[in-house]
Amino acid sequence: MKPQTAYNELVRHSREQALLASCIELVGWDELTQMPRGGVENRGHQLAYLSGLYHKAATHPHIGGLLDTVTSSPLVADAESDEAVNVREWRRLYERSIRLPRELVEELADVAATAQQAWANARQNSDFSLFEPWLENIVRLKQREAECRGHAGVAYDALIEDYEPGVTSEQIAALFEALRPELTGLLAEVSRSSRITQPRILLREFPIDRQRIFAETAAADMGFDFERGRLDTTSHPFFSPIGPGDCRLTTRFNYNNFGDSFFAMLHEMGHGLYEQGLDSARYGLPCGEAMTMAIHESQARLWEKFIGFSRPFWQHFFPLAKEIFHDALHDVECNDFYRAVNHIQPGWNRVRADAVSYDLHILVRFELEQMLISGDLKAGDVPTAWNEKYRDYLGVTPANDAEGCLQDSHWASGQFGYFPTYTLGNVCAAQLFVQVRKDLPGLDTQLADGNFSDLLDWLRENIYRHGQRYPTAQLMERITGRPPDHQALIDSLRGKCGEVYGKSE
Amino acid sequence: MKPQTAYNELVRHSREQALLASCIELVGWDELTQMPRGGVENRGHQLAYLSGLYHKAATHPHIGGLLDTVTSSPLVADAESDEAVNVREWRRLYERSIRLPRELVEELADVAATAQQAWANARQNSDFSLFEPWLENIVRLKQREAECRGHAGVAYDALIEDYEPGVTSEQIAALFEALRPELTGLLAEVSRSSRITQPRILLREFPIDRQRIFAETAAADMGFDFERGRLDTTSHPFFSPIGPGDCRLTTRFNYNNFGDSFFAMLHEMGHGLYEQGLDSARYGLPCGEAMTMAIHESQARLWEKFIGFSRPFWQHFFPLAKEIFHDALHDVECNDFYRAVNHIQPGWNRVRADAVSYDLHILVRFELEQMLISGDLKAGDVPTAWNEKYRDYLGVTPANDAEGCLQDSHWASGQFGYFPTYTLGNVCAAQLFVQVRKDLPGLDTQLADGNFSDLLDWLRENIYRHGQRYPTAQLMERITGRPPDHQALIDSLRGKCGEVYGKSE
Repeated sequence: MKPQTAYNELVRHSREQALLASCIELVGWDELTQMPRGGVENRGHQLAYLSGLYHKAATHPHIGGLLDTVTSSPLVADAESDEAVNVREWRRLYERSIRLPRELVEELADVAATAQQAWANARQNSDFSLFEPWLENIVRLKQREAECRGHAGVAYDALIEDYEPGVTSEQIAALFEALRPELTGLLAEVSRSSRITQPRILLREFPIDRQRIFAETAAADMGFDFERGRLDTTSHPFFSPIGPGDCRLTTRFNYNNFGDSFFAMLHEMGHGLYEQGLDSARYGLPCGEAMTMAIHESQARLWEKFIGFSRPFWQHFFPLAKEIFHDALHDVECNDFYRAVNHIQPGWNRVRADAVSYDLHILVRFELEQMLISGDLKAGDVPTAWNEKYRDYLGVTPANDAEGCLQDSHWASGQFGYFPTYTLGNVCAAQLFVQVRKDLPGLDTQLADGNFSDLLDWLRENIYRHGQRYPTAQLMERITGRPPDHQALIDSLRGKCGEVYGKSE
Repeated sequence: MKPQTAYNELVRHSREQALLASCIELVGWDELTQMPRGGVENRGHQLAYLSGLYHKAATHPHIGGLLDTVTSSPLVADAESDEAVNVREWRRLYERSIRLPRELVEELADVAATAQQAWANARQNSDFSLFEPWLENIVRLKQREAECRGHAGVAYDALIEDYEPGVTSEQIAALFEALRPELTGLLAEVSRSSRITQPRILLREFPIDRQRIFAETAAADMGFDFERGRLDTTSHPFFSPIGPGDCRLTTRFNYNNFGDSFFAMLHEMGHGLYEQGLDSARYGLPCGEAMTMAIHESQARLWEKFIGFSRPFWQHFFPLAKEIFHDALHDVECNDFYRAVNHIQPGWNRVRADAVSYDLHILVRFELEQMLISGDLKAGDVPTAWNEKYRDYLGVTPANDAEGCLQDSHWASGQFGYFPTYTLGNVCAAQLFVQVRKDLPGLDTQLADGNFSDLLDWLRENIYRHGQRYPTAQLMERITGRPPDHQALIDSLRGKCGEVYGKSE
């Protein structure tokens, strides 16, 4: 077979797999936003069946043969060409997939579907025991998955690979080692500050229908296209790329907490703008798909914490907020609102953590999930271990399991190894934000005018349009001149603390 | 291979196919209730892909071999056994499926997905020209489908077969020939009556959130389980059985029309109660699945028009309606409301047609779709032909295409041959209603007390639990002593007209 023929066949296969993956995504989205409780058993079977089909097609021996035909052909001579990028990624995925037996893929999908309902129920009742057997079962399956994938000694590393290839738990631990003293130092400084913020402004009464109007208006203003997406409510916010022209955000609304839904929405919208900014003509091919999770999360964190916590952002949006939430905000000044948004105080909640504490929340999860996968921590001991780490790292004790180890849905859906990408993404976001402000000196003025188009153009030019052309470190080097490290994040947090709490002034 | 082994393999295959079908159902439901416009192109590809997978598995030569092994084995000796019923239906479906090429199945699914959006858009803009090319395309594909399926001279009959096997257009035409003079006679009598109803009671202001509360409360009261189902809004009401434990109803709310959403909901709830009443242990096997459409529609019509239009039903529900819609109904008596519900006056709208006109609406569609499939009518001539028939049969002229030939979504989704099952279902519903009132002499009192459990038990005993054990005519004979005919429907309508308009008194 000619390399070009083999390549064309791989393209056809890749697009077909993307189609099937988009069906799986939709079926999963529906489970978390629409499905009545009674549907859970069949939903597990549906997801297992579709995942099994996907896996069967992904591991067909034919694919290996086609890849052998194109690899080292002139088609892939230019490593930055679409062809080379596609073949590189197809090869990587193929080699990862063939290590997993289909039965395991199906069982994981089935168990995760049911476990997510068990988790939501346990969280609602704040009763970890309702989730414990599911967690135990999922940890066992993920341990088996890690062994099948193969690793150089640390099983957990085989799981990170699903979200950020090439990164090891050792590297992540080193990153946290650099971050942790800086973050705890900043928290201590802030706690000694005499300048106060008024975070309770954000805990007034914010009618939910108005929160939805504000969120959708703001998202559309920033460039999220609701003709090609939507916003729904769920237990735990997520985004779901159903396919080109259909990217769905979710959030949860809390009558007495403005930030709860709005910043979760901004976070998911950051993911969504990235997905909507991809080249739909290349849909279903790695060169047209979003990067792995460090970059994806960098986009979420960029909009949530760097744009959404900035002063010019609220210079633009506060007047609208004041109109829509007149009862809650009629006596509030923009500066007080801005300072309330940037209030720093460790708490139990990761999703609405302040900018400084955030990565300490991730650290807790990173350490616990390593121990779960290595077998050093039993599922039943998670609540105690969780609460100990929260006390040690953040100085807070969750009131109950709903506020503690049941707050996140990731483990219920089997996403072990995902959490570290939040911190990797955060680090990348800080670096990108420094760069975009250098490249666009008028950015602050534009944001204050509600003009997001230069920012979006910059993101499109530097990130979106490349698909998976460059691995994370290389992409970051191309854009910012160096691979991801913690410095920009620390500088940014230090600046913010100084501005809000006056410590570095 | 032993017959038992082959049978077990067929069971496994049947359940797997049901799983895939339930995914297709969900993806289709999502398109009509949730999907942003931008998703339509990929949605067509998704549905084409899944339908192609389904068809490939349904027509695998292996299935033919397995069926040959079990057919005429002792396993299927008792024609009423689960085994025999399953094998009979598997054989029927297999033999229908292998006549269709996969490409046609995929093209139909893809085109229908896009055509439904084009239809919704055309209806919204009341512009048939936006839908015309899609209709033309779908008719062409359905003509091809009919030729592939095979028929004894009338292509349209091959399409009816999908919804009600064994019924021909000749039989349906004969049924309408018996019905039409009776219906037009009744309409003429009513128009001459001096007793008036006050239909405008139902056109007052009914806030949509309250309509939803009333609909959900009433449905739950009647036995629809919202733990295993939900209610959503859409352009054209439908029901969607996503799988055991998940059956979804849709309706559309109209602020100034109580009946528009409530009776559409009741109709879909009739379908839903049937689906929820099936034996979930037999899910995925013909012996545990709902009957073909005549019986399915009989359940919808039974709840919508026979229960929901009855006096005892409103004796129970009117006080709640009056509480929930206090502004609209505070000065209305139950008897006036009941008479308003039963108001008879031909109009352009099928879904909210009165009990007498209803089947004339179906007749229009039945005649037009026969002509479309035979080629005697071009897509472009549909609006004119539609309006002519409405003038002739119902004496009304739609104001525009949205109120005329764009009102139903069936043709957009390729459901040619479906409409006649509404009248077949209506005829069956009338017969069943006569029988259940004989079998349960206290039914009226029970309904007036809001007690639906004996009625549901009767339906479960006589219909739900049988799955597809008996073909329609046989099932009706078992329950009512004779196959479906028009007499019970005419008697029922005559009685209703007499009661409301005093003509037979």
